[in-house]
Amino acid sequence: MAASTHGGRAKCLQRLVRLELPVPRTVALSFDAVNAIAAGETPDMSALLQPFGDSAVLCVRPSSEDPDWGGPGAILNIGMNDARYVELSDRLGKAAAADLYLRFVQSYSVHVARVDPDLFDDLSDDPVEALGEALAAYEEDIEEAFPQDTGAQLLEVLKSMARAWQGTTARLLRQAKGAPADAGLGLVVQEMALGLGTGVSGSGVMQLVNSDTGARQCTGRYLSQSQGREALNQEKDAVFLQKDDRGPSLQEMAPEAFADLKTYTKLMREKLREEMQSEFTIEDGKVYLLDGVRVARSARAAVSIAVALAEDGIISREEALMRIEPRALNELLHRQIDPEAPRDELARGIGASPGAASGKIVFTAADAQAADAQGEATILVRRETSPEDIRGMHAAAGVLTERGGITSHAAVIGRGIGKPCVVGANDITFQTKRKRLVFPDGRMFKAGDMITIDGSSGEVLAGEPPMLEAARDDSFRTLMEWADTTRDIEVRANADTPEDALVAQNFKAQGIGLCRTEHMFVDPSRLIAIREMIFADSSEDRASALEVLLPMQRADFTDLFRIMQGRPVCIRLFDPPLHEYLPSDRDGIRELAEALDLPVADVTERVEALDEYNPMLGMRGVRLGIAVPEIYEMQARAIFEATVEASHDGEAVVPEIMIPLVSAMREVELVKKSVDAVAAAVRTETGSEFTYRLGVMVETPRAALRAHEIAQHVSFLSFGTNDLTQMTYGLSRDDAGRFMSAYVQQGVYPEDPFHVLDVDGVGELLEIGAKRGREAAPELTLSICGEHGGNPESIAFCRNAGFDYVSCSPFRVPVARLAAAQLAVKDRVT
Amino acid sequence: MAASTHGGRAKCLQRLVRLELPVPRTVALSFDAVNAIAAGETPDMSALLQPFGDSAVLCVRPSSEDPDWGGPGAILNIGMNDARYVELSDRLGKAAAADLYLRFVQSYSVHVARVDPDLFDDLSDDPVEALGEALAAYEEDIEEAFPQDTGAQLLEVLKSMARAWQGTTARLLRQAKGAPADAGLGLVVQEMALGLGTGVSGSGVMQLVNSDTGARQCTGRYLSQSQGREALNQEKDAVFLQKDDRGPSLQEMAPEAFADLKTYTKLMREKLREEMQSEFTIEDGKVYLLDGVRVARSARAAVSIAVALAEDGIISREEALMRIEPRALNELLHRQIDPEAPRDELARGIGASPGAASGKIVFTAADAQAADAQGEATILVRRETSPEDIRGMHAAAGVLTERGGITSHAAVIGRGIGKPCVVGANDITFQTKRKRLVFPDGRMFKAGDMITIDGSSGEVLAGEPPMLEAARDDSFRTLMEWADTTRDIEVRANADTPEDALVAQNFKAQGIGLCRTEHMFVDPSRLIAIREMIFADSSEDRASALEVLLPMQRADFTDLFRIMQGRPVCIRLFDPPLHEYLPSDRDGIRELAEALDLPVADVTERVEALDEYNPMLGMRGVRLGIAVPEIYEMQARAIFEATVEASHDGEAVVPEIMIPLVSAMREVELVKKSVDAVAAAVRTETGSEFTYRLGVMVETPRAALRAHEIAQHVSFLSFGTNDLTQMTYGLSRDDAGRFMSAYVQQGVYPEDPFHVLDVDGVGELLEIGAKRGREAAPELTLSICGEHGGNPESIAFCRNAGFDYVSCSPFRVPVARLAAAQLAVKDRVT
Repeated sequence: MAASTHGGRAKCLQRLVRLELPVPRTVALSFDAVNAIAAGETPDMSALLQPFGDSAVLCVRPSSEDPDWGGPGAILNIGMNDARYVELSDRLGKAAAADLYLRFVQSYSVHVARVDPDLFDDLSDDPVEALGEALAAYEEDIEEAFPQDTGAQLLEVLKSMARAWQGTTARLLRQAKGAPADAGLGLVVQEMALGLGTGVSGSGVMQLVNSDTGARQCTGRYLSQSQGREALNQEKDAVFLQKDDRGPSLQEMAPEAFADLKTYTKLMREKLREEMQSEFTIEDGKVYLLDGVRVARSARAAVSIAVALAEDGIISREEALMRIEPRALNELLHRQIDPEAPRDELARGIGASPGAASGKIVFTAADAQAADAQGEATILVRRETSPEDIRGMHAAAGVLTERGGITSHAAVIGRGIGKPCVVGANDITFQTKRKRLVFPDGRMFKAGDMITIDGSSGEVLAGEPPMLEAARDDSFRTLMEWADTTRDIEVRANADTPEDALVAQNFKAQGIGLCRTEHMFVDPSRLIAIREMIFADSSEDRASALEVLLPMQRADFTDLFRIMQGRPVCIRLFDPPLHEYLPSDRDGIRELAEALDLPVADVTERVEALDEYNPMLGMRGVRLGIAVPEIYEMQARAIFEATVEASHDGEAVVPEIMIPLVSAMREVELVKKSVDAVAAAVRTETGSEFTYRLGVMVETPRAALRAHEIAQHVSFLSFGTNDLTQMTYGLSRDDAGRFMSAYVQQGVYPEDPFHVLDVDGVGELLEIGAKRGREAAPELTLSICGEHGGNPESIAFCRNAGFDYVSCSPFRVPVARLAAAQLAVKDRVT
Repeated sequence: MAASTHGGRAKCLQRLVRLELPVPRTVALSFDAVNAIAAGETPDMSALLQPFGDSAVLCVRPSSEDPDWGGPGAILNIGMNDARYVELSDRLGKAAAADLYLRFVQSYSVHVARVDPDLFDDLSDDPVEALGEALAAYEEDIEEAFPQDTGAQLLEVLKSMARAWQGTTARLLRQAKGAPADAGLGLVVQEMALGLGTGVSGSGVMQLVNSDTGARQCTGRYLSQSQGREALNQEKDAVFLQKDDRGPSLQEMAPEAFADLKTYTKLMREKLREEMQSEFTIEDGKVYLLDGVRVARSARAAVSIAVALAEDGIISREEALMRIEPRALNELLHRQIDPEAPRDELARGIGASPGAASGKIVFTAADAQAADAQGEATILVRRETSPEDIRGMHAAAGVLTERGGITSHAAVIGRGIGKPCVVGANDITFQTKRKRLVFPDGRMFKAGDMITIDGSSGEVLAGEPPMLEAARDDSFRTLMEWADTTRDIEVRANADTPEDALVAQNFKAQGIGLCRTEHMFVDPSRLIAIREMIFADSSEDRASALEVLLPMQRADFTDLFRIMQGRPVCIRLFDPPLHEYLPSDRDGIRELAEALDLPVADVTERVEALDEYNPMLGMRGVRLGIAVPEIYEMQARAIFEATVEASHDGEAVVPEIMIPLVSAMREVELVKKSVDAVAAAVRTETGSEFTYRLGVMVETPRAALRAHEIAQHVSFLSFGTNDLTQMTYGLSRDDAGRFMSAYVQQGVYPEDPFHVLDVDGVGELLEIGAKRGREAAPELTLSICGEHGGNPESIAFCRNAGFDYVSCSPFRVPVARLAAAQLAVKDRVT
């Protein structure tokens, strides 16, 4: 019997029987058999009933291939009729027998015969009277007496359940959970342990771990005189299992039954190699196991359970690694809204940086910083964010933007600093000047009102629901260690600041794969130097404005090198268009004119002159580096001087310098010449020897196509898949948010290509670039440093393409480490 | 003797000798021989002099491989000395003999002995006296008597000319004209026909065509008692050749000599298979041919000459086609500034649409239209143009913009409507608000001041220099016909309006390869409908706003189909982002709010909501078509209804519908489904049958990579190389102007990729797309419709890649037709 022919429940029960656990007699109907019943065929009822004997009371439960796919509810107490009522009255007492019969009449009437449930609303409290009323109600509605033959009852139950599985609603629901169109239903016919009657009788569930924390702890409930999962549904009447000072327990009521149960549950864990929940009935003191199901678990518990199973030698470490969905680790790494808490949803955007945060609404970065200084949590609300907002983003608890997609500025920075972020919430009307938000249902929130965002789901909630804190426990660390010894592709982090680098180091990143130096210039004292540089008219003036930045940049890099302790640090040279550093509003321009002692008209003119139609495709990256060579020269000097400084007191540093937005080999030659010259000068000035590695960030389709030329001049190519995706699709990540969800819903794109690497298009350019690059330079280091770097599917792609490492946001490093380990395990198995 | 060993002049003279024309005795020195002389070796002078006898007077003229590469000036009258002076005094008279000797002393002194030319400034008017003064001046300066030995004189002349060729200036000048670094110089030593003395004696040049128009007309000048090219330099004293009522002529003075000359010149044309200019000397009534050189010619004359040579059976039609540089046709297609006219250059931008125009400066499209209504020519000056300016561009004589490159809006529209255009003139300070231009030299021009632009060279000139009109004569038409029967790749035109289509038809385009429908909406009555559509809140409101546009679009397309008389018309569905149709300034927004009866705040909000960071990569093209399906449905309906209408009264029309900005196959499927549905509806409504072809404009790298998928759903792929170049490089054409010229100068890019197709990067994507497309659908039509379509190199590339046609601006169609013909001829030859 296999789960694929009879369903998971049937398969599990078969294994419990083989373990000689006290499972009541059971017969399983296969998918084919149930299909035949649904099609109108009648099974051989006498053969079906034969194993159970004449007087058995039966139940039928669904058994689909995957328990998540659902199925019709179980029908219990089949076989109850007038005769058996009399018989059981003798054995269990009249009340218990009437209760059993009544339960069956009700569930048969409602679920099988489709009698109006309202007819059973006002039944007497006395079971015997109630039974009479229920039988009368059935007879009145159906105009026939309640069926008395067990075979006839069972056949109707089977038909009803088989047809329910075929219903449209059931089909759509299970397909939404990934079931195939032809998913089958098995049915399990089982003799009942009654749970009602004399002696210790009742039912319950038991598991040996805490579903939330994964701690080893006997949990569950037991309810006297009950059947099925009633103990869970009527919690106030149920008792604990293990002795506990909170109230009575099964252990005290029936120590032997409790001990047996615990033994059975442990045995299931060992033999079924999984943490199981026992569903049991006690009939007159004797324990019956009706079913075993996989323990429900949080992500945190899943990690604990898998690690414990491996540590107990029940499964291998590889299997433990395979049992955790890498993305589920996000739940351990970030605060979550308590899943049990009620949610007052206001709107939904794109969940762009996981974790949840509550705070008062603020509309400017300055307000976020002011509130932070007062110790108040805020949600920074912006149409979109820009480099000027970064300090505000640090100060806020979370960020909500109207525009942008999964790789917009807010999203990238949010993930980088581990700050919850919801973007593209364009259902909300942002009245930023009037400092208020109007939500789709008409509710209006002002600055200072409390909201909560969930950066995983994209939800925006009113108020401040209860939270679950992040939990990186010992099991998590153990699992990560196993992942690291298993995987065969390196994982680095994208980290722009010493703070980021500390997080990266904490998450055991093997280096920094992308340090975006432009984020180092948002500090006001640096911003003014950048602006002076922009307004300088001669190369000398530019160089002297940049000289102010040199010691700051040198300190940045020295810090980074020290934190990374000799691990590689890949620094991307200045990339953004210069106008990002200029104010765009009148006030800002006036202030800048004052600071630079220039007429407002001059400042306005320069700001307008630097304005671009398509900044993404404009004067930035290496184009700026060639047009204004002083910038790269200053940065190269800062890197090399920091290299010398950091190498004094630690391992020798070999910095990696990456050129952005390359589209032609000659660009690389020009920058290489200039950087080499700076290196030679610093060597002479300091009398220190050092080496460095130069590389190119492959972000344009042309750089990928010409990789064989470019590779002749560099040590590494790192694919910046954000920009490469933008250019391959002709699609700006900042503008795509407006229609991306509609596009994905209509299946125009199978996935948001900024979220999941587009293997067909962008992926082919990666493969072309990798192949041509390695052909020209076999020792070339290959990597990916776009937002896709932390994505399990992208990691698989890069590993297949022979990449050396992936680099992702620090908070995604654990996900990447686990995903990489799973790929290595899969390769060993196949 | 070959031009590659002895130079072109030597080669030509050899041929004239073989034709038994009266060429004075001639000896040619090879490149090697001249190199040896320059290196200090002395040639065997007696052997060199032997053919000429003792009493010859000689000249030496340069003979480089290509006459354009220049060379040292000729030295005449070598061999003149005291003895020969006496001798010739007897024969020619004392004055003539003294004149000959004096000429030689002067040129030898200045060019060979490097005597200060000022010493010969104040010579006597009497030749005999002057000779004495000149010999004395030589002797004083050099401190030696003037050399008397012919061999010694000749050796010094040869040495001097050989060394002059090696000089740095001469080398740089010829390398600028394409000469290789080791280009050689031959020297021709020729016996002189003296041109001075008794009887009819003198010199001149004759050619049988007009160099400007190419008309057959005996032109040239003859000057009595002259040598070399003096007749051209002293025009007031020279006479005409052929009898002419403007003055005396050689024909009257020496009818036999004239008749001989004409015979010789005709013979040269026939035998040298080229229109030649004769350089002749008459000595005592007898004609000597000193040289024959290719007639200098304008582009227009070049066409006439080539066609006449072919029509006279002297060369083949193929050869005639090969003799015209395709780009030179631009001179025939557009007005030119008279090359002889003085130019007062104010600044230089990028010549973006050929032709010259003069007009008064206007700063707004409205001013251009107002002036046009008054019959005044204007130059429309804008920072950049946008669709709102198109009517103003039509009204202006030319357009000058501060920003943009070869494929900016102004450039594309300018070429499309054949309007001269200079873009990217960022040396000029545009003070558009103060309505003035400040030029680099400080001159300030106000609105109303007259300027002239040259859209070929990019020059901006003060005032209104004289112009040469465009000249498409019979020869041009004949050459184009020959080109059409020769070439094997089709040429279509990009044409957006009926006016464009008329031009295209006039230039014999084989269809319209790209009709950009968005240019049809700039008319104010249409603009308001588009804006209503943008502000509509429901699909119904959108559809009803679009209904206003339907009859206009239908009329547009009906016109196009009728003009093109059954030739294919490829219509691109709506492409630009919607915000291009919205005002961006306060006044415009206020007006729009009034027109739509909406609050200004609402209009502002919608305008801001549609604003994009990178419009090029945003919500446009097929993305808009899918998000707002009503637009494409309206356009498809207009196309099909026009098809039915135009097919009633002419050949059946098979419209081609092209989807812009595709990046995924599913986009094509969705649009196809919707267009098919409209087609079916129109068939039912009209009861008419028609077919149509659907295609994709390949503008994103991804569309090229996925061409095999896309090709399954379409009949054609047309590569839009403007956008494809932008995305392959990650470079906006509108923003690239700022640094493109510096980039090309530094050799970062070998050429502006928006001007010359980037074969390595963009070209590979074209090849990939073409190959994959044809593999999936062998009957797929392939073409290019970007700005490169009219570029000879791109046409060669597309032809090699198996494309069916190229499409370019109407005014570039003749260039493309000729370039395509040359490719076919080259293939036949090799």
